[in-house]
Amino acid sequence: MSQQRHGNTSGEAGRVPAFPDLPEATIARLPEYLRALHHLAETGAETVSSEGLAAAVGVNSAKLRKDLSHLGSYGTRGVGYDVALLVHQIEYILGLDKNRAVCLVGVGNLGHALAGYAGFASRGFRVVALFDADPDKVGERINGLTVQHISELGRIAVEESIAIGVIATPPGTSQAVADALVAAGVTSILNFAPGVLSVPPNVDVRKVDLAIELQILSFHEHRKASLTALPGGRADEADNQEAVGS
Amino acid sequence: MSQQRHGNTSGEAGRVPAFPDLPEATIARLPEYLRALHHLAETGAETVSSEGLAAAVGVNSAKLRKDLSHLGSYGTRGVGYDVALLVHQIEYILGLDKNRAVCLVGVGNLGHALAGYAGFASRGFRVVALFDADPDKVGERINGLTVQHISELGRIAVEESIAIGVIATPPGTSQAVADALVAAGVTSILNFAPGVLSVPPNVDVRKVDLAIELQILSFHEHRKASLTALPGGRADEADNQEAVGS
Repeated sequence: MSQQRHGNTSGEAGRVPAFPDLPEATIARLPEYLRALHHLAETGAETVSSEGLAAAVGVNSAKLRKDLSHLGSYGTRGVGYDVALLVHQIEYILGLDKNRAVCLVGVGNLGHALAGYAGFASRGFRVVALFDADPDKVGERINGLTVQHISELGRIAVEESIAIGVIATPPGTSQAVADALVAAGVTSILNFAPGVLSVPPNVDVRKVDLAIELQILSFHEHRKASLTALPGGRADEADNQEAVGS
Repeated sequence: MSQQRHGNTSGEAGRVPAFPDLPEATIARLPEYLRALHHLAETGAETVSSEGLAAAVGVNSAKLRKDLSHLGSYGTRGVGYDVALLVHQIEYILGLDKNRAVCLVGVGNLGHALAGYAGFASRGFRVVALFDADPDKVGERINGLTVQHISELGRIAVEESIAIGVIATPPGTSQAVADALVAAGVTSILNFAPGVLSVPPNVDVRKVDLAIELQILSFHEHRKASLTALPGGRADEADNQEAVGS
């Protein structure tokens, strides 16, 4: 979004920062680099050039080199980046060595899809609890977990040290769910319900809003139609693939 | 992502641009402004201050004013913005007056959730077709539509003038689906499958990747833990709510 930076700045000279200062857009690309690096590692590659890694992710190599320089990774001239080392560095900075506990609130169609989504079981996360307010859904088994009543959230969040809450409830209920998550000590929220959540400053919110995604694509459809209609108009863009969340 | 701009620049002096030149982040915020404006209109508000609208969306008012200035909307000093006019301007630029046809490929759990998602039926879009490659799913009725075999995509996309394709297929199949969508003349893709799609330059891709969203939240958990551990560390951020896709 903005060029807002997260992480402490080094401040006084000579003091080593405990955490690197990363632009939001760089943070959003690190998971993409990581996925591409895992694929490379699976094929037996030990090193990768910035051009090769950039092509796999669909960014330009200058941007990739700048992103990785924030992590202190510069590669070796003529050799490239060490795949295993770079995987380790990115996983460290993303905190993926922590095996964070995730809960999901709302097990309608979307919640079912999310509970069964393989991405949630990917390295570094485990879904430990499912909640719903509907008594008919409480007790249902999904992917080895039993749906519990939302009133149990506070107790279970503490017991399971839940760090990340996913909201997949109908519109109009998301703020109450967010309040319950925050009260239970959850400090990161992934929100699939429409609208803006109000949360304390120490809580991070990411949201996925399908209506917004469609409207952004509609803008591009409109733009392309306008360009095509112009004399000498062109509808192509060199960098047309936008990552959501970046 | 970047400060990449879409739309033609005005070029020669005196030539009115057919389409404004908008930063990607501004495009992503327009749907948020629109939602807040619709809420305001429902409550009977005729005008809104930049501060009021900014607060409803969770951005600062200077950013909001700059965003809207790209549309030629400056509001009136002491009065603010005309709600109905601003709704019209944003809907126009987002191309929401076009009632675009959307198809959905892949009707597993996620596809079911998406087919039933109210946001898809929101102003400006209509889901006209559902596709799957699984013969067991073909013929199933979801929200008034019958699932059709993916081999029908080309014919139906042309018949229905489908502009936007949503990919909700399992990993590993998304590129083939994207190729089929592109061959059928679809020029915008919303991709829920992991990985990077290769598409021609006139095709826009937005992607929603849950694993990436979790990893970004994990980064923030890691960051906050690092800050808390520092002497004098602080874990709060003034602008902690990040919109996915912006």
